[in-house]
Amino acid sequence: MTDTYTHEIRVTWGDCDPAQIVYTARIPWFALDAINAWWQDTLGDGWFQMELDRNIGTPFVSMALDFLHPITPRHRLICEVYPTRLGQTSISFAVNGRQDGVLCFEGRFTNVFVDPKAFKKTIPPEDIRSHVQKYLRAEGT
Amino acid sequence: MTDTYTHEIRVTWGDCDPAQIVYTARIPWFALDAINAWWQDTLGDGWFQMELDRNIGTPFVSMALDFLHPITPRHRLICEVYPTRLGQTSISFAVNGRQDGVLCFEGRFTNVFVDPKAFKKTIPPEDIRSHVQKYLRAEGT
Amino acid sequence: MTDTYTHEIRVTWGDCDPAQIVYTARIPWFALDAINAWWQDTLGDGWFQMELDRNIGTPFVSMALDFLHPITPRHRLICEVYPTRLGQTSISFAVNGRQDGVLCFEGRFTNVFVDPKAFKKTIPPEDIRSHVQKYLRAEGT
Amino acid sequence: MTDTYTHEIRVTWGDCDPAQIVYTARIPWFALDAINAWWQDTLGDGWFQMELDRNIGTPFVSMALDFLHPITPRHRLICEVYPTRLGQTSISFAVNGRQDGVLCFEGRFTNVFVDPKAFKKTIPPEDIRSHVQKYLRAEGT
Repeated sequence: MTDTYTHEIRVTWGDCDPAQIVYTARIPWFALDAINAWWQDTLGDGWFQMELDRNIGTPFVSMALDFLHPITPRHRLICEVYPTRLGQTSISFAVNGRQDGVLCFEGRFTNVFVDPKAFKKTIPPEDIRSHVQKYLRAEGT
Repeated sequence: MTDTYTHEIRVTWGDCDPAQIVYTARIPWFALDAINAWWQDTLGDGWFQMELDRNIGTPFVSMALDFLHPITPRHRLICEVYPTRLGQTSISFAVNGRQDGVLCFEGRFTNVFVDPKAFKKTIPPEDIRSHVQKYLRAEGT
Repeated sequence: MTDTYTHEIRVTWGDCDPAQIVYTARIPWFALDAINAWWQDTLGDGWFQMELDRNIGTPFVSMALDFLHPITPRHRLICEVYPTRLGQTSISFAVNGRQDGVLCFEGRFTNVFVDPKAFKKTIPPEDIRSHVQKYLRAEGT
Repeated sequence: MTDTYTHEIRVTWGDCDPAQIVYTARIPWFALDAINAWWQDTLGDGWFQMELDRNIGTPFVSMALDFLHPITPRHRLICEVYPTRLGQTSISFAVNGRQDGVLCFEGRFTNVFVDPKAFKKTIPPEDIRSHVQKYLRAEGT
């Protein structure tokens, strides 16, 4: 498990609400930052470059998150990211956020690959498929 | 169905990403704005007043959203909100967002009622229970 | 003064930080929402439609804000918006935010008109110029 | 100048608007993240810890930014941060953001020190004063 990709987030005062914990709506944002960082740090290109340079869009079709523990600025938020499923035209990710070793949220996300101009589902290019396959991992393993 | 609560959102340029549609991470934010507005417009108090004046916190334990159609600034986003379940110490909401009559996202959200100081689950006061019960509706009805 | 354009914002729990007031970085965001709403409600088109349908971009070159009073979810935030200067290729706006009659922030903003493709300064079309001129008002009047 | 504090920001797809550059309202947010990081990385405590552990609030009284060059996800945004003035009860910061060596924005920010409970101006403790003095630098030097 030592080689799972992680993305670190500095949680701030401005991310928190009056309950002194991160406002819930910030957490999917953090998770998306983590998925974008996964693409950028493993493939070399984030969503911006994928869409503009590679002509591949990956709009989200679903997300589901469980919030297990409050997130605060006391510790960095370490987001573990890995693809859990690669379909013909879709990809699913797990994003699990931890602070000081404590699991704070678990998220599951699914994108479809699209041609950005037509905004229609498309099969991703082979280099993307083979890249993702190297990182595929069943959930809970 | 004519009396379901709806919250209207003016979608802006700044909500959109380079694909010219609303950035995915904004959508749970919109949905939470809609749930907060439901409390404020039906009960009279939003989360801020519930926590500070009524001493009731409602942290989220889960959310799940399906994204069915892109959201743009071309139309207002009309978010239908209703509670779907009232447990002993929890409440679930449906939030369905439409633009120009087209369903753009469906979201399901669960909060627990807590004592804000202890951050422990608590049974909500009777006036909150009876308020919610008036609006309870099965999903899909 | 009764006919100055105002844009109303519902301030929420999620806009606030642990000091129980709106986080400072949200306030320029509110002010930009107010300027976008001014365009949309007076001209008929917000920034999204101006850029995509009218081929006019208005990037910001400067902003300056004074924060005079904390903003909370206790009242709606009423943002008064008016253009204060129309240059050959630029426009300046005043945005003043009030809650319950109390001035909370004063902001001054300057945009340039650009051709979105070239991202070069351009003279705005005559209908835009004459539209803005109807609303021009010196600051402090 | 080699020892000026810098804070690095990964600019993302979600920070950008349909013009394919960072949405203006995100830039003050970035600058505040940079000031908070300056406190956290030089003093050891960010705003959250300052307010909750040290009982020092630093609400903003003003900000002014010039936007000189569009910001994109093509490069990291390097924010140089330093205090430019320490008054009896206030502090001013310069935040200058660069991408690939190009100055993208210049910002000037002023906070007052307050007692968080009373929300009244207060003289900061001596260890904060002496800490800030080590980093004070005239603008433009």
